[in-house]
Amino acid sequence: MPYADLLTFFHTLADTADVITTQHFRGALHVDSKQAQFDPVTIADRGAEQAMRALIAEKYPKHGIIGEEFGTMNENSDYTWVLDPIDGTRNYIAGIPTWGTLIGLLHMGKPFMGMMSQGFTSERWWGDGATAFYARGKTTTQRLHVREHVMLKEAIVATTSPDVFANTHDLAAFNRLKTHARSARYGNDCYNYISLCMGHTDAVVESGLKIYDIVPLIPIIEGAGGVVTNWHGHAAGDGQIIACASPELLNEIVGVITSS
Amino acid sequence: MPYADLLTFFHTLADTADVITTQHFRGALHVDSKQAQFDPVTIADRGAEQAMRALIAEKYPKHGIIGEEFGTMNENSDYTWVLDPIDGTRNYIAGIPTWGTLIGLLHMGKPFMGMMSQGFTSERWWGDGATAFYARGKTTTQRLHVREHVMLKEAIVATTSPDVFANTHDLAAFNRLKTHARSARYGNDCYNYISLCMGHTDAVVESGLKIYDIVPLIPIIEGAGGVVTNWHGHAAGDGQIIACASPELLNEIVGVITSS
Repeated sequence: MPYADLLTFFHTLADTADVITTQHFRGALHVDSKQAQFDPVTIADRGAEQAMRALIAEKYPKHGIIGEEFGTMNENSDYTWVLDPIDGTRNYIAGIPTWGTLIGLLHMGKPFMGMMSQGFTSERWWGDGATAFYARGKTTTQRLHVREHVMLKEAIVATTSPDVFANTHDLAAFNRLKTHARSARYGNDCYNYISLCMGHTDAVVESGLKIYDIVPLIPIIEGAGGVVTNWHGHAAGDGQIIACASPELLNEIVGVITSS
Repeated sequence: MPYADLLTFFHTLADTADVITTQHFRGALHVDSKQAQFDPVTIADRGAEQAMRALIAEKYPKHGIIGEEFGTMNENSDYTWVLDPIDGTRNYIAGIPTWGTLIGLLHMGKPFMGMMSQGFTSERWWGDGATAFYARGKTTTQRLHVREHVMLKEAIVATTSPDVFANTHDLAAFNRLKTHARSARYGNDCYNYISLCMGHTDAVVESGLKIYDIVPLIPIIEGAGGVVTNWHGHAAGDGQIIACASPELLNEIVGVITSS
């Protein structure tokens, strides 16, 4: 697959998802009180994933797909797409623009290329593990770089919620990490990882993640110069995730969160 | 003061702040590593507040001003402006677009009119206690309404961070509230109150707030049909705040958070 064609196809998938996600964002504003049970997330999530799956099936019929809403197909393919139509559904429901459409591509099981699209702000970030880029609307594309040379005591760390952790042991580990860092910030889901890629957050530490929450972001984070591992510093999958700006910072974080 | 003139002046203040806040947002992207200590918040905060204070002093020289960065002047005036140039500084620093410029006007010490401006997304919300509105860029202005008839067990509650609470007693009260609500969401600062006004969040509960964190939002929340009080259901000032969609929901929340 030529690189330029592949990137164009990522943008086509994101364009398609954006139409559906932005159409339903803040949808409850437009329905009357009789329809209080209207669920914009379900409609937008399913619609965006279905539309992306249809485009993939047409262009790359032998590729695998793993999606949040419609499961796995062709799982033994060399190439597998990983789709989270709306990451950050609580923010989406709340009308807050820090959700994103995540599109990833695995090659032989390894993260190969990834994109996050934010349809409401017209922002898009993508990477291939070696380089990563940002564009807003039709503006010039910018190269992404993590912030370098920040150690834990100066670091801004982030996590989506104290409730995101898989258990109280993991929550205690994050609370311990906070006492060693400069500051901690909550909220934002995928936007935290993107803040890391833009050089504005130094580490994101979470547990209980699914493969589609993180795989599409890995080539962007690594492309921006960051590292992504599990809580023991080994290859990231689902579950416990550390994403941060350098191997040195990673070592400090692993030390603190595995010290109990 | 004619209402239309006053609203125009609010928009002028917001336009002026937007130029400065958006200029420095993600500023660290454009500086090299030698300038790692560059502080975009300080520059943007101070610059935006100074520019708004200068406009107020020129147009309404006898009015009072209370600002986050430059303190209080003319405090015995009938009209006092309350300015928070960047509410949500942690998000601002992180390059995440859920901060806002808050502009409030007190009349005889009571919240009279308020506006929040989000320069990066070109969004603006304003209210006068009786009505509240939203506009994005040049799009049509929409009326804001809270979601009605939601009781605590169906409610989405929000707070900025477990670290926002003034003490462990207040944090315990919020954690108790979570167990009675449908779901809880973290992050977002002023954007949580705006989500309430748009009908997408049912309650925001915080403590440790300053007057400029909440006063500009009160006429928007009340204008959208919501209520804002302290944790005992009395008039809101600084400190402990409950903002929610109805008096009935307020009663439930006060009951839970004062029950220990």
